[in-house]
Amino acid sequence: MRFRIVEGDLEAFIEFDREASWPFVSEEARKGMSYEEYGRRHRELVERLCRLNLENRFFLAVDERGRTIGAAWVGIRIDTVDYVPVGYLYDIEVREEARGMGAGTALLRAVEEFCRSRGVKRLALQTPVSNAQAIRWYLRNGFRVTRVYMEKQLGAASGEGRARAAPPA
Amino acid sequence: MRFRIVEGDLEAFIEFDREASWPFVSEEARKGMSYEEYGRRHRELVERLCRLNLENRFFLAVDERGRTIGAAWVGIRIDTVDYVPVGYLYDIEVREEARGMGAGTALLRAVEEFCRSRGVKRLALQTPVSNAQAIRWYLRNGFRVTRVYMEKQLGAASGEGRARAAPPA
Repeated sequence: MRFRIVEGDLEAFIEFDREASWPFVSEEARKGMSYEEYGRRHRELVERLCRLNLENRFFLAVDERGRTIGAAWVGIRIDTVDYVPVGYLYDIEVREEARGMGAGTALLRAVEEFCRSRGVKRLALQTPVSNAQAIRWYLRNGFRVTRVYMEKQLGAASGEGRARAAPPA
Repeated sequence: MRFRIVEGDLEAFIEFDREASWPFVSEEARKGMSYEEYGRRHRELVERLCRLNLENRFFLAVDERGRTIGAAWVGIRIDTVDYVPVGYLYDIEVREEARGMGAGTALLRAVEEFCRSRGVKRLALQTPVSNAQAIRWYLRNGFRVTRVYMEKQLGAASGEGRARAAPPA
């Protein structure tokens, strides 16, 4: 199977990503949500995140029959520590049956080239610690782990643990 | 030294955080930027990030003389995977000379209580992997590492590494 990388628009990206992202929605969240409702929220979220960036670009890997086999979305945004523009890779995804042909690497190169064309010197992303396959792939492609993302589950408040938050000073 | 936790406004938080964050700006970025310019960008960034959230809260730890010794900023935002509201701890900081008295823990409790009051079940944050002290503190306070944040430095494009990005399809 041969493929080429093309620049796509928001609609083409949403169409591909809506389907690709559905399996990553937690079971709990899926139970209370139809696919249509999910599609509505997915679009709203992508559009909302896009508006936060200085610029967005979508790249598609397209096979010989014109079918999209992978996609990437990068946004240029202002780093919250250095106040310089950095690239943030919101998504890079290749259909399972189309992996191992270099489509992901080609998408990543298109993203990097776009960032360089904007004078951007850093590309960042987040991925779950449980996704060892993705982390290995990013390491092989020149990424390094620079921060950790931590989460705490909030149970019901215990009486003695309550904070002494006072009204506005 | 005794302290109390109060809810603060955006201005009180900006004042504290502007000073506390300056040492974290990279040397390179500091060279090309006066403190005034930094202050302008800092305010712009905090205000911009605030607008992305459904709701923001600022808590201050204040000592007996009325001096702010610590601060926390939490925003409620929609999780990009589950589409449910989660708390994001943008900042929790205690002055070095005021550490070890529990001000950080008390600030964290105020943040958690606020999140619970909004029906939010998850609190998240990011911290550099190099900050082992912060990571230990968060682990002790019930946080777990769920994602990694990875970065790649983009050098100049090499001829052979160029992607075949085509104009919009």
